[in-house]
Amino acid sequence: MGRALAAAFAAEAREVTVWNRTPGKAAGLAVTVAGSPGAAVAAADVVVACLIDNEVVRRTLDEVPFGARQALVNLTSGTPGQAREMAAWAAERGIAYLDGAILTPTPMIGTPAGTVLLSGDPSVYAQVASTLAVLGGRVLHLGDDPGTAGAYDMALLDIFATATNGLLHGFALAAAEGIAPTSFAAFAGGIGALLPEMAVRMGAQIEAGSFPGDRSTIASAASSIGHVAATARAHGLDTGMLDAARGVIDRAVAAGHGAEGLARLATLWADPVDEAV
Amino acid sequence: MGRALAAAFAAEAREVTVWNRTPGKAAGLAVTVAGSPGAAVAAADVVVACLIDNEVVRRTLDEVPFGARQALVNLTSGTPGQAREMAAWAAERGIAYLDGAILTPTPMIGTPAGTVLLSGDPSVYAQVASTLAVLGGRVLHLGDDPGTAGAYDMALLDIFATATNGLLHGFALAAAEGIAPTSFAAFAGGIGALLPEMAVRMGAQIEAGSFPGDRSTIASAASSIGHVAATARAHGLDTGMLDAARGVIDRAVAAGHGAEGLARLATLWADPVDEAV
Repeated sequence: MGRALAAAFAAEAREVTVWNRTPGKAAGLAVTVAGSPGAAVAAADVVVACLIDNEVVRRTLDEVPFGARQALVNLTSGTPGQAREMAAWAAERGIAYLDGAILTPTPMIGTPAGTVLLSGDPSVYAQVASTLAVLGGRVLHLGDDPGTAGAYDMALLDIFATATNGLLHGFALAAAEGIAPTSFAAFAGGIGALLPEMAVRMGAQIEAGSFPGDRSTIASAASSIGHVAATARAHGLDTGMLDAARGVIDRAVAAGHGAEGLARLATLWADPVDEAV
Repeated sequence: MGRALAAAFAAEAREVTVWNRTPGKAAGLAVTVAGSPGAAVAAADVVVACLIDNEVVRRTLDEVPFGARQALVNLTSGTPGQAREMAAWAAERGIAYLDGAILTPTPMIGTPAGTVLLSGDPSVYAQVASTLAVLGGRVLHLGDDPGTAGAYDMALLDIFATATNGLLHGFALAAAEGIAPTSFAAFAGGIGALLPEMAVRMGAQIEAGSFPGDRSTIASAASSIGHVAATARAHGLDTGMLDAARGVIDRAVAAGHGAEGLARLATLWADPVDEAV
């Protein structure tokens, strides 16, 4: 990812100085390679950090002085709590700080599809916005809280991890029934294609606290997930995710939400205890 | 759903006779209402059953005689095993039988988006194909095994249930971080929009048994799902699905698959034991 970021900056004719723990990662790029983190920081107005985790960011930059006109943009992946800790760490050192999360894989950096979410001090964003804009078509500042970018990142990774594993579990179940993965693929992808519309509709329902059961109900989901889990179990598949989803669906039915729409389940995922008693 | 099916047949100027356990469901439709299942069957060349479950189908039709030129198309939702049992039950009675699964909600029946999967005896399919074609733009016969339509249905419902609950869990996590559902919706839906391409790519990888880690690796998924689960747990969310996914990802890493692509996880969901030892 560091190489992709450096390439995107260099492609826009920025003067780019890079440092990497492993030398040679910048081979072939039109950038200056610094011999130490301090030398890299000293050469820059905008310092972009993207390391394995936030502890490594602190360890790498702890002894490095920042000037008053410099800003640190930390694109290292982590939790919202870590981002707020990093902002506090930077504030103690007088470093102008912005946190961020990269949502797209390396090949999309620097393209219209490139998406980078930023959050924290708006005056720091104003200072770095034109520099960071080269990273992709969607480089967005989401608010003053340095944890917000990480919060979006975590909630989106949550959906990505669950949906991807659901997709792969569906392939496994289809294969157990003798269906070739390439025959199943277009149907499987069609389920994903339903999600954008569902996200908009269900987001509005969750915000309104209103869960109409006009399209499908939690009661019918309880019946269908029961069939699915039984079929998967009969083939010896791991049913851990299905069992967890089924547990929440059954809890919703027990709490009297059977006739409501699926979006109601968001409140039960949020609160494992209250609705169960 | 029964009403939607009857309306689609009636709209194409078919002579339609209906029976429902609850009288009055056909109000306003241009159909003949029969007083008993036997009377409805006696009036038809193609008998379409769509009931709460397959046990109710058998109970409803067990004493009803079918003629040699009649066919039974069972669109009741159930497992592939149940479909095969139904085919055996029909064979014992000399009933020409086809099993099916309706993949789309009631408003799409009779429209180009309407999707109905069928499987079983191809000669029965030939007999009913023109009648069933009115149910939607995608009425497909998938093979001789009467369980195949149900197998597709189960594997697709598997993906749907998991992805939908993942989406709702993401909304719950975002809300716990102070992000309004309507602000999060477009980002959340964007994850779903990735799935069609992923399904095609990963389906080909699973079929080939080759899982390149060029885009993303199981090792990086292990790291990110750990961050997500920690964030969700800190907010008191139910982490059952994440924990189950994480268990499989960790098992993949332990089995030496960390540098491979995510599609490899399909083989671990399929086999909870072999790879763990």
